[in-house]
Amino acid sequence: MTATVHPLLSGAATPSLDPLVSLIAADMNHVNAEILARMQSEVPLIPELAGHLIAGGGKRMRPMLTLACAKLLGYGGTRHHKLAATVEFIHTATLLHDDVVDGSGMRRGKRTANLIWGNPATVLVGDFLFSRSFELMVEDGSLRVLRILSSASAIIAEGEVAQLTAQRRIETDEDRYLRIIDAKTAALFAAACRISAVVAERDEADELALDSYGRNLGIAFQLVDDAIDYASDGTTMGKDTGDDFRDGKVTLPVILAHARGDETQRRFWKDAIEGRRTSDEDLAHAIRLLEEIGAVADTLARARHYGQRAIAALGRFPDGRAKSALIEAVEFAVARAY
Amino acid sequence: MTATVHPLLSGAATPSLDPLVSLIAADMNHVNAEILARMQSEVPLIPELAGHLIAGGGKRMRPMLTLACAKLLGYGGTRHHKLAATVEFIHTATLLHDDVVDGSGMRRGKRTANLIWGNPATVLVGDFLFSRSFELMVEDGSLRVLRILSSASAIIAEGEVAQLTAQRRIETDEDRYLRIIDAKTAALFAAACRISAVVAERDEADELALDSYGRNLGIAFQLVDDAIDYASDGTTMGKDTGDDFRDGKVTLPVILAHARGDETQRRFWKDAIEGRRTSDEDLAHAIRLLEEIGAVADTLARARHYGQRAIAALGRFPDGRAKSALIEAVEFAVARAY
Repeated sequence: MTATVHPLLSGAATPSLDPLVSLIAADMNHVNAEILARMQSEVPLIPELAGHLIAGGGKRMRPMLTLACAKLLGYGGTRHHKLAATVEFIHTATLLHDDVVDGSGMRRGKRTANLIWGNPATVLVGDFLFSRSFELMVEDGSLRVLRILSSASAIIAEGEVAQLTAQRRIETDEDRYLRIIDAKTAALFAAACRISAVVAERDEADELALDSYGRNLGIAFQLVDDAIDYASDGTTMGKDTGDDFRDGKVTLPVILAHARGDETQRRFWKDAIEGRRTSDEDLAHAIRLLEEIGAVADTLARARHYGQRAIAALGRFPDGRAKSALIEAVEFAVARAY
Repeated sequence: MTATVHPLLSGAATPSLDPLVSLIAADMNHVNAEILARMQSEVPLIPELAGHLIAGGGKRMRPMLTLACAKLLGYGGTRHHKLAATVEFIHTATLLHDDVVDGSGMRRGKRTANLIWGNPATVLVGDFLFSRSFELMVEDGSLRVLRILSSASAIIAEGEVAQLTAQRRIETDEDRYLRIIDAKTAALFAAACRISAVVAERDEADELALDSYGRNLGIAFQLVDDAIDYASDGTTMGKDTGDDFRDGKVTLPVILAHARGDETQRRFWKDAIEGRRTSDEDLAHAIRLLEEIGAVADTLARARHYGQRAIAALGRFPDGRAKSALIEAVEFAVARAY
């Protein structure tokens, strides 16, 4: 770590996930083996459908965080392998259900499971993975871990319903939006980090510090995703550009642009979010407005703010390879859109 | 209990759930309070949608079984109230997802949640209730209960996927079908009964006996439901007659009729299950064929067989009001279609 002019950057010229990936590579092999073994079922459609998403090139960000935080704490056991698989199962279950909810067609550059196998199978395999995640936690046997992850799961579902309620409502404000992403995205990042402190038998202050790291990283991650939806070319991130726009999703760039726009612009945003402007021309106009008014840049500035808070939460832990990798992961998360 | 000519009937002339209902009425007030309190959320759509089904006149069969089995074991505490609510939440979550999976429009004589609020909200509120059920179990704090119910939940999801795979496949045989309903229906009946033995701190033999009671009752229950789908007038059970037929669901009456039919009949069943015969005339023809060949009567005979096994599993427990009520509940379950 060297201080630089940029308030967030460490010494890394181009922040990357590589240090995090190599830090936990050996552990991740165990996690991958656990994931593959425990998504099996005598009903062949289950591993087939689950495998499409699980083997589909996701970064496994959340289980990586569980493993890296355990390393940060010097944990030398193996319990975190099963629990990291648990976290990935919960995440995969929510992705499967999200795809049904959004009716989306592409994820990570591949067709979504619901397009290939239909909504019914996708809902039910999500249910299976979710149940299986609780079976894995019960095998681990920690009621504290069960409490953290069952609570996170309920909060995620609440956040998803809240987002559904906010959909197509231009009056959603920044505070409400931050509460939604805190629930639907950041809660699982927080829990993934926090459980490593339980496994390593650390005190509640360490638990809460890792919760804060994960939560702030999760918010930063989501805000950058929101920005990318109005910027990427649809191939780099494996996500269709403008998905949020066409679905009438109110995200932070839109909230900022609407709040600052003149009457004509506010009318445009209301029409767009309520589904009356969904053409490619409308999307291009939206992107121009967002750029002009600085809404994308400010969304990324907000993301950096949460990124800084994530890094600050690591202050109590000793410097070293794990801490550097966790810091650079934050920098990577907020640098993706540049 | 008096022996009668009929192999199943106790002294009750017309078996009813009333003895079970009155046996646990005081406990059920606590369970209902728990259900209402714990389905709340600051996201208003959650209690609104969940309440539609939860307040919608279901019999609460599964929590009743948890309470009645606890009574059978002389349990004097209150832990079973929260756990009975847990069981009902898991059941409600699966019903919500079932309605999305089946695209059904009526349940218990009311419009289904997915018709009123749409599939996205219905999937997500199901996820919330499922997560909440695990939070309640964690509050109770028994890893053994968590193991039983997380395992049952995974088995239910597997059974649902297996049923989806069997849908529109006339080659599904009786053995395979029984494995499906053992998973998708009977597993939760079994778990609901079994956890009462954990709470009452009984040995594994008592656990397994109550598991067997619940499992066999669950199978009997499902088989009678299958028969009713080809017999009721669509108002008595709050379920559309012929739903299974029109959805191409292979249930035991169809399996028996197909296995025994001549070539013309087998062709008819194949066409029907594969979706080429779905008119009201086709349904009327199907009902006539099932009657002629005795398939409904034999489905009900199978149900009585499982009912007898459920009653036999209670043999190790002392006679009394709880045991009589549990026996009469079985008789009620198999008598519904007469």
